[in-house]
Amino acid sequence: MQNQLQDRIRLPALRERVTTAEAAAQWIQDGMTIGMSGFTRAGDAKVVPMALAKRASTEDLKITLMTGASLGSDVDKTLTEAGVLARRLPFQADPVLRAAINRGDVMFVDQHLSETVELLRTRQMAPIDIAVIEAVAITETGALIPTTSVGNSASFAILADKVIVEINLTQSLELEGLHDIFIPKHRPQREPMPLMSVQDRIGTSVIEIPPEKIVAIVITEKLDSASNILPADHETAAIAAHLVDFFKNEVTQGRLTKSLLPMQAGIGTIANAVMQGFINSPFEHLTMYSEVLQDSTFDLFDAGKLDFASGSSITLSPQKSREVFGNIGKYKDRLVLRPQEVSNHPELIRRLGIIAINTALEADIYGNVNSTHVMGTHMMNGIGGSGDFARNAYLSVFATKATAKNGLISSIVPMVSHVDHTEHDVDIIVTEVGLADLRGLAPRERAQVIINRCVAEPYRAMLNDYVERANQGGGQTPHVLQEAFSWHQKFRETGSMLPVNAQAEHKVPEKEEALAMV
Amino acid sequence: MQNQLQDRIRLPALRERVTTAEAAAQWIQDGMTIGMSGFTRAGDAKVVPMALAKRASTEDLKITLMTGASLGSDVDKTLTEAGVLARRLPFQADPVLRAAINRGDVMFVDQHLSETVELLRTRQMAPIDIAVIEAVAITETGALIPTTSVGNSASFAILADKVIVEINLTQSLELEGLHDIFIPKHRPQREPMPLMSVQDRIGTSVIEIPPEKIVAIVITEKLDSASNILPADHETAAIAAHLVDFFKNEVTQGRLTKSLLPMQAGIGTIANAVMQGFINSPFEHLTMYSEVLQDSTFDLFDAGKLDFASGSSITLSPQKSREVFGNIGKYKDRLVLRPQEVSNHPELIRRLGIIAINTALEADIYGNVNSTHVMGTHMMNGIGGSGDFARNAYLSVFATKATAKNGLISSIVPMVSHVDHTEHDVDIIVTEVGLADLRGLAPRERAQVIINRCVAEPYRAMLNDYVERANQGGGQTPHVLQEAFSWHQKFRETGSMLPVNAQAEHKVPEKEEALAMV
Repeated sequence: MQNQLQDRIRLPALRERVTTAEAAAQWIQDGMTIGMSGFTRAGDAKVVPMALAKRASTEDLKITLMTGASLGSDVDKTLTEAGVLARRLPFQADPVLRAAINRGDVMFVDQHLSETVELLRTRQMAPIDIAVIEAVAITETGALIPTTSVGNSASFAILADKVIVEINLTQSLELEGLHDIFIPKHRPQREPMPLMSVQDRIGTSVIEIPPEKIVAIVITEKLDSASNILPADHETAAIAAHLVDFFKNEVTQGRLTKSLLPMQAGIGTIANAVMQGFINSPFEHLTMYSEVLQDSTFDLFDAGKLDFASGSSITLSPQKSREVFGNIGKYKDRLVLRPQEVSNHPELIRRLGIIAINTALEADIYGNVNSTHVMGTHMMNGIGGSGDFARNAYLSVFATKATAKNGLISSIVPMVSHVDHTEHDVDIIVTEVGLADLRGLAPRERAQVIINRCVAEPYRAMLNDYVERANQGGGQTPHVLQEAFSWHQKFRETGSMLPVNAQAEHKVPEKEEALAMV
Repeated sequence: MQNQLQDRIRLPALRERVTTAEAAAQWIQDGMTIGMSGFTRAGDAKVVPMALAKRASTEDLKITLMTGASLGSDVDKTLTEAGVLARRLPFQADPVLRAAINRGDVMFVDQHLSETVELLRTRQMAPIDIAVIEAVAITETGALIPTTSVGNSASFAILADKVIVEINLTQSLELEGLHDIFIPKHRPQREPMPLMSVQDRIGTSVIEIPPEKIVAIVITEKLDSASNILPADHETAAIAAHLVDFFKNEVTQGRLTKSLLPMQAGIGTIANAVMQGFINSPFEHLTMYSEVLQDSTFDLFDAGKLDFASGSSITLSPQKSREVFGNIGKYKDRLVLRPQEVSNHPELIRRLGIIAINTALEADIYGNVNSTHVMGTHMMNGIGGSGDFARNAYLSVFATKATAKNGLISSIVPMVSHVDHTEHDVDIIVTEVGLADLRGLAPRERAQVIINRCVAEPYRAMLNDYVERANQGGGQTPHVLQEAFSWHQKFRETGSMLPVNAQAEHKVPEKEEALAMV
């Protein structure tokens, strides 16, 4: 332990700050705003929040919790069940917290992931009292070496008055050097971000803070939660194949080279499967400039397809995690982890010309996308970085299976019940049925292409019928307003978007089960 | 004339290209894509499009017309009436064209103004065959000196095979040097844009093209159309006063200095009135980094409040136009006109920390904004630059009068009938009733603030009733989907959003008149 502490806490004076999670959690008081590390289940603070939850059984304790993105290790679940969360931002993906948000018990501020620390830096949100950051080690000068994510950790630690560090002994010291920490200056001194290529390093490898801000250090040995993505299936493989065909044609047309442009892929099963589709493709020397690096990133490295990957976190399945973190030296010179403000920065996304591939919960016939709200009201996870990328990308792709719930929900509807991405920011919609290239099209044209290419039967005929009647009313974006949400209404009432006479052909799950989400 | 030609066409070989508008228009053929100068009624090509419209009476002639933004001089009206427009982008503001778009006769591609030339440069839209550019003069090397707007003119001229120039003798040679033309490199060679302050000049003062591309030159003496904004009234003055109070408090809180941050103001009466509200304010050394510079910009200069203004065009009332262009030397060292790709660039908007003030057609209780579609279907003008700014600004403000049509339409509704700006991109909503500061709030909190601060009676009680019933269904963003558009429905059916018993108190215009728009 003493040797480990020498490696892990290299500034001797700080070793006396090592304490228990319970003691560290005592720094956190009712009403505080706490910034914790953690991005897509990677690199989250794990033991201090648990100790905090325990305290809530004997005292009034409500906090605002900010993180990078979603947490693993049941942190959000446990804090929610303990009633500790008054306010949460900018993203989450926990079923227990989600239910509390949808009951109105937790105020959830769903933010573009690049913006949270900008709002803190300009004091447009309440300041962070305490940062709780997981680290591989603390350097000789008191700087923090992050673990498997950077997220908002650097700015949280810089902006907070006090910092609690969780040193995670399961995270290899070899992670040192993987990170590139760049913090923009305050305006009006802000300068251009000097990144011109995905592999450029523009900052420091550690989070530099005055060591006296570190008020407590807790030693942990808890692993990151594994990725919970599902393997590719027939439908996600078909989506990937349509996209590969599309990009082949872009190369043929001379609009892209065989190395395309740097790619971003959203979190989750579909985006991971799409990236895996590039393994057996004619493209080469690919690069990624993304948020979370999932299994597919390392599959592409291993297949010799990918030259470099920049992200803000690494979140892997259990097997892939062992392969990658057991052998990180093999990948380290082709990887960099950055603050999410940098990975998702509009300046860099536009400059690099990112190909952004994100997942839609539903899309409408004009190409507006709902990424977040089930049936228009109930939060799923949050907008995450999809807006940062879609709005500023070279090409903005949204992928979704054409139906959900065994065909009872069409992912393409007359009007999305909630808009996260407007038609202006959506270039391509792709389902297992096909791909709609919407570039340069007016809304009436977009509707025809989306319906013809992306929609599953029998919804195609239903949408054509809707469009025909909508067009009679005229307009740039024709709609029958009183019917615009009738599909969602029908689902709420019957558990299906299908007409009653068509439902016999489908396996109808219990209505209660289908409606459980809303 | 010969002397004028020497000043105006300084490369002698080009003087033989001077011809009539009719002859110049002969270069334009059926099916072509034409890029014309013009941004917010300023600096538009004026005589070649008119000659083109005449030809359409005797031959089949359909074109795709791209511009910077809206045109004056009845160009869009005349081309629409002649049936010449098959496709139009990225913005328009003409009633005759608007009607044709809403009939589905013209395909209108409503784009973020910063993106059009990016899509052309990457060949993601059909290429421009011919550019028609108004200029003050052509230089010794064949470069173009733009007039009162830059818009997309530079990239149109660079990307087109052939260029037709309209030399406008009413535009003073003193405009030379006002412009700053910067063209980003193709990716992956794209570099940081080296602009760090609103007054920085990063390009050339002229549009450099090979002179052999200039196939025709037409001499004109037509003035720009004047601005059609209305003077400030009680309501716009109240909106301005609320915003000035808000910014005073931001200064008191130490979040901004007395010179605030560079300001953008959208086109039109409300944004112009808001900027005029800063004349009698405690702020000083203000700067603008905007699209169109309106009367208020020069009022602020004259009041000693404004240090510098960067825009893409200057559009003024007749009187202000005489004052400014009759004495441009007085302002020239405090002004620059840039390509709209630069004035609206995400990289620069985020870096400079723009305070963006744009106009909403309607907003909803959660802060989503509709900037474009009347009753959800019918195009008004287009999204313009509002998305470029709102998405990347330091602070995104949307202003609207609380009601329209003499109180029969509430500008704040349960759900906007079309989304141009999502709640993520809207920080402040302000009406004459008051100002809602939405920063850091969750949707349920946003609803309370917007209803309490911004809504006119009797709609406030109606919205509170809606929210109460919506909350019973739960969710992050509670709604009663079947009622979400009921206010729009009621307007379509009765000419008013008010309950029938409340309408007696209001002057009800003829239903036909109120419904004419939809």
